[in-house]
Amino acid sequence: MEKKILITISREFGSGGRRIGERVAEELGIAFYDKKLINIVAEKSGLSMDFIKDHEQKINNSFLFNIAVGGYYAGHAFNSENLIPEDRLFLTQTKIIKELAEKESCVIVGRCADYILRDTPDCINVFLYSDMEDRVKRAVEEYGVPAETAQAELKKKDRARNNHYTHYTGEKWGDIHNYHLAAHTDYLGADIVVKLITKLAKHGVR
Amino acid sequence: MEKKILITISREFGSGGRRIGERVAEELGIAFYDKKLINIVAEKSGLSMDFIKDHEQKINNSFLFNIAVGGYYAGHAFNSENLIPEDRLFLTQTKIIKELAEKESCVIVGRCADYILRDTPDCINVFLYSDMEDRVKRAVEEYGVPAETAQAELKKKDRARNNHYTHYTGEKWGDIHNYHLAAHTDYLGADIVVKLITKLAKHGVR
Repeated sequence: MEKKILITISREFGSGGRRIGERVAEELGIAFYDKKLINIVAEKSGLSMDFIKDHEQKINNSFLFNIAVGGYYAGHAFNSENLIPEDRLFLTQTKIIKELAEKESCVIVGRCADYILRDTPDCINVFLYSDMEDRVKRAVEEYGVPAETAQAELKKKDRARNNHYTHYTGEKWGDIHNYHLAAHTDYLGADIVVKLITKLAKHGVR
Repeated sequence: MEKKILITISREFGSGGRRIGERVAEELGIAFYDKKLINIVAEKSGLSMDFIKDHEQKINNSFLFNIAVGGYYAGHAFNSENLIPEDRLFLTQTKIIKELAEKESCVIVGRCADYILRDTPDCINVFLYSDMEDRVKRAVEEYGVPAETAQAELKKKDRARNNHYTHYTGEKWGDIHNYHLAAHTDYLGADIVVKLITKLAKHGVR
């Protein structure tokens, strides 16, 4: 049997990391999960797509402090009755990410997958980032964010990702010690980042 | 004329980053500067080796606050008369690093070289790190640090590097945005880290 390849990609909004993840999956001929994952979540949990889009990474402060400290949920049993919808969403995603990792080789972008799969041997965790200037350019040109609010929007996204990650993992989002590799997408260029990750996947890690 | 290759390596103490830098230089057939650099500094500045060893990265708090804010020195003229010895040392190193980068392809480990060469086109900045467990193991087995004090010693080294870097550059040491690539040496293993950096050097960056 061929060795399974598992890659998680965490990325700053506007770094082009999602597309790099997709290209890595294509290159390696393995599955890719991102929005597709949300669809599966929606299907399995009975939550509507609108609900998921509204609640992903929009955890506010009252939620942060009303609920137990970060890192509490990921290890706990799925399907608890008293959980608020955001928690159910996270637990559903956790369950599905673990099932996918069990089942097949894949690239998973976002969704705290690096943390969820932290004990999975040979899972490669990559963090992709860029500088504000290039991120703003990409947000405007590719994602249609208005130029005048793009920088504020990116900072808001960074805060939201950081809050969401810390809440559910107890770790700081983007702390390199949680990743095997971190790459500056715009200095290196997408082509070489794809090659580096692909090379890593073929070699494997300890 | 062949394209010049410039690589700076910043690394956590005990990550094995110095040896990786040396192997990259061997692999690419280019010069390597680390302690060798200190010898050149000593020779050019008239400072004794003992003085250099004592003052490298041992900038204390009074020094940090008595002198102007971080980031001030690197761009300034060399050879000012009123500087304290630590500053002269840094300025001498700055001057030599710039001369080396001008003259030949090389790998430079430490010494804020990433910051000093930040405006040099095609210079590749790499940050190498590991987890505390592996760093302690390496510090004990390879560098002869006593096991019982190794972890405290590593934390002290991290603080010293951070203080030194922030003082002279105004930046946070280890902030990934200052590097093109960051790699976990022990998860990936030295062999693949050497290959990744070598590959990057051959491709070049924007």
